[in-house]
Amino acid sequence: MTSVPKKIGIIGGSGALGAGLAKRWAKSGYQIVVGSRDNAKAQVAAQKLNGEANVNSITGKENKLAASDADLVVLTVPFSNQIPSLELIKEELTGKILIDVTVPLVPPKVRTVHIPNGGSCAKAAQEFLGDEVKVVSAFQNVAATHLDDLDHTVDCDVLVCGNDPAAREVVVQLAADAGMKAWHAGVIANSIVAEAMTSTLIFMNNRYKIDGAGLKITGTPGSAS
Amino acid sequence: MTSVPKKIGIIGGSGALGAGLAKRWAKSGYQIVVGSRDNAKAQVAAQKLNGEANVNSITGKENKLAASDADLVVLTVPFSNQIPSLELIKEELTGKILIDVTVPLVPPKVRTVHIPNGGSCAKAAQEFLGDEVKVVSAFQNVAATHLDDLDHTVDCDVLVCGNDPAAREVVVQLAADAGMKAWHAGVIANSIVAEAMTSTLIFMNNRYKIDGAGLKITGTPGSAS
Repeated sequence: MTSVPKKIGIIGGSGALGAGLAKRWAKSGYQIVVGSRDNAKAQVAAQKLNGEANVNSITGKENKLAASDADLVVLTVPFSNQIPSLELIKEELTGKILIDVTVPLVPPKVRTVHIPNGGSCAKAAQEFLGDEVKVVSAFQNVAATHLDDLDHTVDCDVLVCGNDPAAREVVVQLAADAGMKAWHAGVIANSIVAEAMTSTLIFMNNRYKIDGAGLKITGTPGSAS
Repeated sequence: MTSVPKKIGIIGGSGALGAGLAKRWAKSGYQIVVGSRDNAKAQVAAQKLNGEANVNSITGKENKLAASDADLVVLTVPFSNQIPSLELIKEELTGKILIDVTVPLVPPKVRTVHIPNGGSCAKAAQEFLGDEVKVVSAFQNVAATHLDDLDHTVDCDVLVCGNDPAAREVVVQLAADAGMKAWHAGVIANSIVAEAMTSTLIFMNNRYKIDGAGLKITGTPGSAS
């Protein structure tokens, strides 16, 4: 059984999505290390987040040190930075869970689905990192601005994909601790569903003037005979 | 402006999903032609559906005749039959909307997302049929058994993708007339979201013992500034 980690590293923690996760998890009692390319910048970001969340459990370090220091690492960087970021921290991830939040948006056509090479960003990460790292994908569809606002109830379920069910279960628990309903959604290849969904949600935000469209899974567990 | 059709042809109308759409649209006042490989078999299927829906507006014809007879055609066949079916009826589709419901399931691994060549079944259909046919994808995520049961309220939104917004709007209206909330979800390439989502819903049905998981889009139209 994989245990839920005590210390979570967030690579890309200065973006709204990473910041929102950092604050929500910190308020739930986790230790957080936000990573940045620069050590001093990471510390400034951490102090800002501590202030916003009224906690003091968020620290900041250069990315490689943040990954090394954490029990579990979350990657919340733009598509173009995904593999370069993983190259930098690969050695620090051995034996850990990596939560990959990467969405394959290709500006400026962010409302059109782009399927990355290999069929999914998270699948590519799993292949790049090898079997020593358990890659789980999640949180691609949550509006970053909603997550970043601690007074906002997130009205978006989280699809959790990965090849290791116990690692997925850890992420389902972490999502709950950040205030979100999460679902096991299958192997890492299935991650493209959530990755691609983001483009359709951005399309809907524009078409219907929605402030952060999301999705909910319907149906009653245990209802099937 | 593309007008909503009076007569809808359903290729694959003897399956549960096609049958459910046929009955629900017939009850809303549309004329339905269900297609089958065999004329006599199509007529038998039509009579069965008329009985189940308590209507007499459903007729049955061989596939090519059904497509020819209809103003708008719906394709609800297994993945492996998609392009062969389109080859058969291609000439009959000129100037019409084709609603493609194809899901790229590859048995036996139906809980794992399979991305078809070209990135989407419906996109492949649009490319195969050319600009004279307006391909719109929809209904991939609705549980067929729920749709087939007229007493069942379908608790699943419909993502509508296609390159022609007016054609999408027709399909949004048709979904509403069959009792479902539908959303414009972007260009035909975005169809892979709904196509791939079906594998994750099947995964969840199995994992959580859900009788027909679905999805709902969250967020309030008009809420964005």
